[in-house]
Amino acid sequence: MDRPTGFESRLGYRFKDRALLEAALTHRSAGSVHNERLEFLGDAVLGLIVATELYRRLPDASEGELSRFRASLVNGTMLGSVALELQLGDAIAMGSGELKSGGYRRSSILADAFEAVLGAVYLDSDLNACREVVRHCFGRRLETLPDPVSLIDPKTRLQEWLQSRQLRLPEYRLLSERGEPHERVFRVECRVLDLSIEAEAEASSRRKAQQAAASRILEQIES
Amino acid sequence: MDRPTGFESRLGYRFKDRALLEAALTHRSAGSVHNERLEFLGDAVLGLIVATELYRRLPDASEGELSRFRASLVNGTMLGSVALELQLGDAIAMGSGELKSGGYRRSSILADAFEAVLGAVYLDSDLNACREVVRHCFGRRLETLPDPVSLIDPKTRLQEWLQSRQLRLPEYRLLSERGEPHERVFRVECRVLDLSIEAEAEASSRRKAQQAAASRILEQIES
Repeated sequence: MDRPTGFESRLGYRFKDRALLEAALTHRSAGSVHNERLEFLGDAVLGLIVATELYRRLPDASEGELSRFRASLVNGTMLGSVALELQLGDAIAMGSGELKSGGYRRSSILADAFEAVLGAVYLDSDLNACREVVRHCFGRRLETLPDPVSLIDPKTRLQEWLQSRQLRLPEYRLLSERGEPHERVFRVECRVLDLSIEAEAEASSRRKAQQAAASRILEQIES
Repeated sequence: MDRPTGFESRLGYRFKDRALLEAALTHRSAGSVHNERLEFLGDAVLGLIVATELYRRLPDASEGELSRFRASLVNGTMLGSVALELQLGDAIAMGSGELKSGGYRRSSILADAFEAVLGAVYLDSDLNACREVVRHCFGRRLETLPDPVSLIDPKTRLQEWLQSRQLRLPEYRLLSERGEPHERVFRVECRVLDLSIEAEAEASSRRKAQQAAASRILEQIES
């Protein structure tokens, strides 16, 4: 019981029904009663809590901005870092194969487990208890929100910037495509005719290369 | 006040703060205080309520089944039909352009407004009040859930059926592609070698034609 209790104090919540906590901390590789159903529930709990926080904190944000803020808070990377702070990796039960997995795969298992824990808190108590846990675990992440404009992808941002000034849309052109099939490299050019600026960029897909080129144009515009 | 009151009785909820109800019933085409932010909130409220209902009603469903059930309940078509029963179209304020729009566009405006109304109930009261409204408005839709297998797309269903019997995967082949660019017709064949059955189907995309062909194979298998 020592380990879960340490986890509970980091979580800021003490379970009445410890079977719920145990299920939330069991990856499907480690038992028949595992955390996938709780993750389904916890994902919805987290979605509502973050939506409510953003709605209240940002009275002037549009629906589109609220959605982008939520996506910047509720995603694998962010939940993985929350799970890391909670030392969720020490508390979770996994099969031996999964225990060895590292990097992205492991981070995603921990992110899912954090959602499962929230689902378990919801069943053990109520939405308010979950809200406290989210505030406790997210901490400053909820306070220090990024500039909403920075959350829009560069291509869209460039397009909106030009349209708002009644300038022509940028032109993208594939300059070259090389490399083996499993590691293609695409080189793309982006030209903004009305400003006589252009930029090139390379990436592993045409779309990513276009985004990178648009990003370079934005840097030139903003500097 | 007559119209909103009629709407409230159909909704099964009486607002304390009538400004919230009014905002929820104002499309962005009709006013600066419109329902898009409330829709953002209501979408998350509905997501959690339906997730919780499904979690409790279906203790044996897997996470994948729960997700598919939720998608079958929370989508534009279903919400449009809920909104229609509520006569939401009579209660909502829209700009003159939107008033005339029919079909899918109108149904989607009403579906969004239903979510906004739920967001307004949540702010006016709490999650429990929203749960009552959802149960009231969804009614039997929450009770009579479809066969979970029918929610999986035919190609995946056929693949899973064959894999569970250790049979080889089906082969899809494009037989022909004809018609003008804006109305292409794709004819696809699906063959299940180990059962010596095959089926053909036509559709407006290769993917849809494959799905239709897989569906015909499933019919043959099931009959």
